[in-house]
Amino acid sequence: MLKLYSYFRSSASYRVRIALYLKNIHFEYVPVHLVNRGGEQRLTEFLQKNPMGQVPTLEDGDLKLSQSMAILRYLDDLYPSPALFPIEPRMAAKCIEICEIVNSGIHPIQNLSVLQKLTKDLGMNQNGVSQWAKYWINKGFTGLEQTLQQTAGQFCLGGELSAADLFVVPQVYNARRFKVDMTQFATISRIEQNCLQLEAFQKAEPHTQPDTPKELFYK
Amino acid sequence: MLKLYSYFRSSASYRVRIALYLKNIHFEYVPVHLVNRGGEQRLTEFLQKNPMGQVPTLEDGDLKLSQSMAILRYLDDLYPSPALFPIEPRMAAKCIEICEIVNSGIHPIQNLSVLQKLTKDLGMNQNGVSQWAKYWINKGFTGLEQTLQQTAGQFCLGGELSAADLFVVPQVYNARRFKVDMTQFATISRIEQNCLQLEAFQKAEPHTQPDTPKELFYK
Repeated sequence: MLKLYSYFRSSASYRVRIALYLKNIHFEYVPVHLVNRGGEQRLTEFLQKNPMGQVPTLEDGDLKLSQSMAILRYLDDLYPSPALFPIEPRMAAKCIEICEIVNSGIHPIQNLSVLQKLTKDLGMNQNGVSQWAKYWINKGFTGLEQTLQQTAGQFCLGGELSAADLFVVPQVYNARRFKVDMTQFATISRIEQNCLQLEAFQKAEPHTQPDTPKELFYK
Repeated sequence: MLKLYSYFRSSASYRVRIALYLKNIHFEYVPVHLVNRGGEQRLTEFLQKNPMGQVPTLEDGDLKLSQSMAILRYLDDLYPSPALFPIEPRMAAKCIEICEIVNSGIHPIQNLSVLQKLTKDLGMNQNGVSQWAKYWINKGFTGLEQTLQQTAGQFCLGGELSAADLFVVPQVYNARRFKVDMTQFATISRIEQNCLQLEAFQKAEPHTQPDTPKELFYK
């Protein structure tokens, strides 16, 4: 059985969880707590699975795979239905473009490891850290909103669900954590609402995972 | 004809330039200076092409495409030879994993816009900014080196050139700019050396572009 190393609040793990539920793939959920014990992702045992010390990490027999984009492509190859990536070249490229605006354009700069560095090494306080995260999400969402206005219908790419939606929805979850004003981003908000109607997105939400702390858990 | 909006020193543009030369695609090089005039990527005219205000941006008729991963996939669809992405699912996934370790794991955190934010808003000095960039490249390369030890031959994926090499080589260029000690990373260094033997990589190097300042230009 596939094993997913995941943290309930990791938005990159959230992307992969949605894919697993969409495709109805049975998997074992292995929690990796990114804060407790100095960060379980930094323990030697985990670094042997993923030298970058990050979740999500997928284990399929002797294959260990990190990076949500790589994992989603792998799952799409092994379990093609429903397809996450369009085939037609322009649609395929637009899909990846939207994924990457989140994956490389927004998320890495507001990721936990960067926020921890700002706090520990630069002495930034909690408010400063929140402002930092908010700044980059705001900036990225301003560009993303305009990009999506060209392509979106019910979902990021017209009426068809795709990998792009699996990146946008978890990033909105982060935006809310950092109190970004989502009323500025009507298209992004509409897509999120439509996606959250779907069972796969609900099952993958940070609030309902095996490692979600009791006080944050809700159905 | 395809138009590439590029900046000589942008490592994400460098990735796309390598692909264009590898595939022998004729293209028009449109320089976008990321520093002069307050950053030409922030001018309204450019934001209409790419709302994120980033290079590289590819223009193919009415299609405007940002994000190097999306552009590389698009070029690979339109001009399949030589292929940048393997077909076999495990190899394909490993290729994307390596691309993304650079694309989302390292590069965004040491990108110009982040360094400018650290300087302007947090008052960090030049030395602090260099240390920041160096820290993230060192951290990322430590993980990347171990990942590549499992997959590399002459190139990132055995003896076959792939998209992964197009991400690793420009990141090494950045590492050198920030004086990262590359002797720690034998596999990465070997791959860079092998790639730089190839004409496409030489043509794409930051030192030989139409917008490379004279004092940095060499053949």
